[in-house]
Amino acid sequence: MVRPDTTVSPLPHARWWRAGVVQAVSPPGVIDLGPGYLEPGLLPVDEVLPLYAEALTEFGPAALGYGANAGADPLRALLAARHGCAAEEIMVTAGTSQALTLLCTVLGRPGRSVVVERTCYDLGRSIMTDHGLRLREVDADGEGVRPRSLDRALSLGDDVAFVYLTPTFHNPTGTVAGEQRRRELLAVAARHGVPIVEDDAYGELNLDRPAPPPSLAALAGRRGVIRLGSFAKTLGPGLRLGWLEAEPGVVGTLTGRGQLVSGGSLNHLTSLAVAMLMGDGRYDLRLSWLRDQLRLRRDTLVAALRAGLGDSVTVDRPAGGYFVWLAFDPRRSEASLLDAAGRAGVAVAPGSRFGSAAGTHLRLAYSLNSPDRLADAAVRLATAWRNEETLR
Amino acid sequence: MVRPDTTVSPLPHARWWRAGVVQAVSPPGVIDLGPGYLEPGLLPVDEVLPLYAEALTEFGPAALGYGANAGADPLRALLAARHGCAAEEIMVTAGTSQALTLLCTVLGRPGRSVVVERTCYDLGRSIMTDHGLRLREVDADGEGVRPRSLDRALSLGDDVAFVYLTPTFHNPTGTVAGEQRRRELLAVAARHGVPIVEDDAYGELNLDRPAPPPSLAALAGRRGVIRLGSFAKTLGPGLRLGWLEAEPGVVGTLTGRGQLVSGGSLNHLTSLAVAMLMGDGRYDLRLSWLRDQLRLRRDTLVAALRAGLGDSVTVDRPAGGYFVWLAFDPRRSEASLLDAAGRAGVAVAPGSRFGSAAGTHLRLAYSLNSPDRLADAAVRLATAWRNEETLR
Repeated sequence: MVRPDTTVSPLPHARWWRAGVVQAVSPPGVIDLGPGYLEPGLLPVDEVLPLYAEALTEFGPAALGYGANAGADPLRALLAARHGCAAEEIMVTAGTSQALTLLCTVLGRPGRSVVVERTCYDLGRSIMTDHGLRLREVDADGEGVRPRSLDRALSLGDDVAFVYLTPTFHNPTGTVAGEQRRRELLAVAARHGVPIVEDDAYGELNLDRPAPPPSLAALAGRRGVIRLGSFAKTLGPGLRLGWLEAEPGVVGTLTGRGQLVSGGSLNHLTSLAVAMLMGDGRYDLRLSWLRDQLRLRRDTLVAALRAGLGDSVTVDRPAGGYFVWLAFDPRRSEASLLDAAGRAGVAVAPGSRFGSAAGTHLRLAYSLNSPDRLADAAVRLATAWRNEETLR
Repeated sequence: MVRPDTTVSPLPHARWWRAGVVQAVSPPGVIDLGPGYLEPGLLPVDEVLPLYAEALTEFGPAALGYGANAGADPLRALLAARHGCAAEEIMVTAGTSQALTLLCTVLGRPGRSVVVERTCYDLGRSIMTDHGLRLREVDADGEGVRPRSLDRALSLGDDVAFVYLTPTFHNPTGTVAGEQRRRELLAVAARHGVPIVEDDAYGELNLDRPAPPPSLAALAGRRGVIRLGSFAKTLGPGLRLGWLEAEPGVVGTLTGRGQLVSGGSLNHLTSLAVAMLMGDGRYDLRLSWLRDQLRLRRDTLVAALRAGLGDSVTVDRPAGGYFVWLAFDPRRSEASLLDAAGRAGVAVAPGSRFGSAAGTHLRLAYSLNSPDRLADAAVRLATAWRNEETLR
């Protein structure tokens, strides 16, 4: 059943795509639909290559000194214009994971709680529990967290540091909350006086029209909401660059922390490099191209899975992001499905990694492989899972 | 008394050296000896300009993907060779302030204590107190923390998360602990089983021969010591890059945090760019040039201060780093000295900012101005402080 993949990478730098340089590499011979990575060929090497020289030519020593604590004005201004807020409501970060880490220490403290969706980003959970925060899980439906569940969770005690939500292209489920749902969630959190941290790492990767509703931050005018944005999923995680949107007072609190007063902007030179890309339309060109690439991959994978699996598995087509979330008959075993996929040479992410939701789910990333390989993976998976079902 | 400085900066990028882009600018007309900044002309714009393109050409997409959690092998290997340890004992960080922040959450938790020198880096203190850690201050002499004081502090209770020490080119005092002192401090901490965090941000900026003794980390073979290194003071803080040395088990704990597992290396592309500089000798050339520049500035400032102040003020000549630490007659008032300096158009850092040490001290940075301006500042200060003494 295993068909080792012997394709030689067409990239001249393939020898550096290895553990110890990058975080993880796919096992040889496996089509890897596991992690939320971009295929190496989708990373913007050519676009980023001139940027730092451009930034140093433009900004000179100001690009190498301590950057303004909230981030350098040029990128803040561009982000503010892009996301419809004031520059004072923007803070440059070193990515979503860094921003969430900062918030865990500023809003939280060991023993306090965070309200999270029962199924949500596993490493976001790790960051929170690493800081001694307890997770209070709430139920969700096809639009994410249900307002009534949120209300109940916030009524259980006043020890909640914040609510962690991903209303747009949720990881792993891919769900998008409608505008009405968003307003209801905002109202519930506001009534309890608890801030919302909106993880919007995939927010700009909408693949269909219309685009998703405005972010929680935009709907609330940033009041009571801290939105985390990232360039990790649109440009590359190696940049370690993101931003957050928040009320100016919150930005002031964050930028007044010793870490910021000491080190300044969380990634100064890189923020100016990305400002060069965003300032003259190159970022939008990149984004448009990447959306096309991801749409092709999503459509290929979803179509091939539906064709191969028939009605036995629910294959939702996400409107954006990197992932397809598969819902199996809950009587089927996740471990058996994973084993069968592995024997077929395909790696996927177990749904249980993302929380304790009832049912049997798997997450499949369409971001890390070519359309051909995705189609191949879907055929392998469908065959393996049909056989697995027959055997059990 | 105020002589406004009307020199036009010779730098073509001077318009960007302003608040909102960089963290802080000197007030107009003031010779600023306050912050631990490099003069813009000492920042390595030309050296850094080609590096990112070089890294992207060499590493391709691997420079933009998620970097290995502990940092990419190429920089870890170079740092290990440079600092005499194994690559497994190196972790790439986003600078000392980020590393200290991480350690506060991993080693500490609110309510626990950190043992610090009574006089020490003010923003290091802020980072620790931001995380709810209490500071237990110990006395120092001309070689920094006294082993007996450390022993006493560690005997007071078992709530100490770590000891924070700067044995090399201490900020602000400039002191260097001898090898014997270092071994004694290591022995005391080891006896109590408490880890030492060695802040070595200035460690490579030795201006005299012989070089300072080996780091605490080197003397201890990293056992029980976490040494924080930085490129902020040797290249530029805008890079947001540093490293730490620690036992492999400690590196494993740190790189297993959710923040790292999620985001990967703390500043991946930049780490590869700096590896290009370090790999072929350009970093050493830069360091050698920078040491010459700093030595000239230190010698100019120290000589001019001694000539102007005579025996009334103790002007120690530091063996490295960015700062001269002035010890005044303790009956003189810090506020009056600062006021007099301000009226003379010179900004300096009040000693009280760095802790509660008895006596009257000021910290003067020689890193942020040309030798001519440093000589000018020394003349202004000597005149102002003589007048202030006459008046009181």
